[in-house]
Amino acid sequence: MANLDSIFHGLADPTRRAVIARLASGPAPVSELAAPHAMALPSFMKHLKVLEAGGWIESGKRGRVRTCRLRPEAAKAAEGWLGQQRSLWEGRLDRLDAFLATINEKEHRNDI
Amino acid sequence: MANLDSIFHGLADPTRRAVIARLASGPAPVSELAAPHAMALPSFMKHLKVLEAGGWIESGKRGRVRTCRLRPEAAKAAEGWLGQQRSLWEGRLDRLDAFLATINEKEHRNDI
Repeated sequence: MANLDSIFHGLADPTRRAVIARLASGPAPVSELAAPHAMALPSFMKHLKVLEAGGWIESGKRGRVRTCRLRPEAAKAAEGWLGQQRSLWEGRLDRLDAFLATINEKEHRNDI
Repeated sequence: MANLDSIFHGLADPTRRAVIARLASGPAPVSELAAPHAMALPSFMKHLKVLEAGGWIESGKRGRVRTCRLRPEAAKAAEGWLGQQRSLWEGRLDRLDAFLATINEKEHRNDI
């Protein structure tokens, strides 16, 4: 399993995000993945290597065609980490709300 | 609003993720954020700059103390992008399931 450093590094580039978005709809050969991107093939292959290191994609060769597919585990790990932070954050806001409600109540009592 | 490149780049480092996780529980002064990390302050400040560029944190100075707080918009953008890919991916699996169900049904009919 790739670590979070390389998982998130995989997402920090528009070409790599485009490849992930394309593969989310199904596997594709490298030539088809590269076609929409205005760059030399070696540069594009470097992006695929970064995605492979981040556990986002895997590829296999059949004859002369290399086909890539998405591995959903990387997305799960990324969403999992973000979800944890959201829980912390929302827990904090809930406690803040509760605190403010207490203050309001006290002030209300003092008014009466 | 920061772009997705710098949002995800912000997450591609353990020190920066630790800072985000700490700030999810509430604002903190830079000195407190830096304390658990075994690195020189200038190196740590570079990480804070990356997080600021990615829209993850904002900071303000009061006297000699600089305090950082989390901005939840970056997390929303990151989760939003990942959620889109998941929809594509799950939609694909649903279509695959439907396709396999059709095949099974046909085979079942042929058996009878």
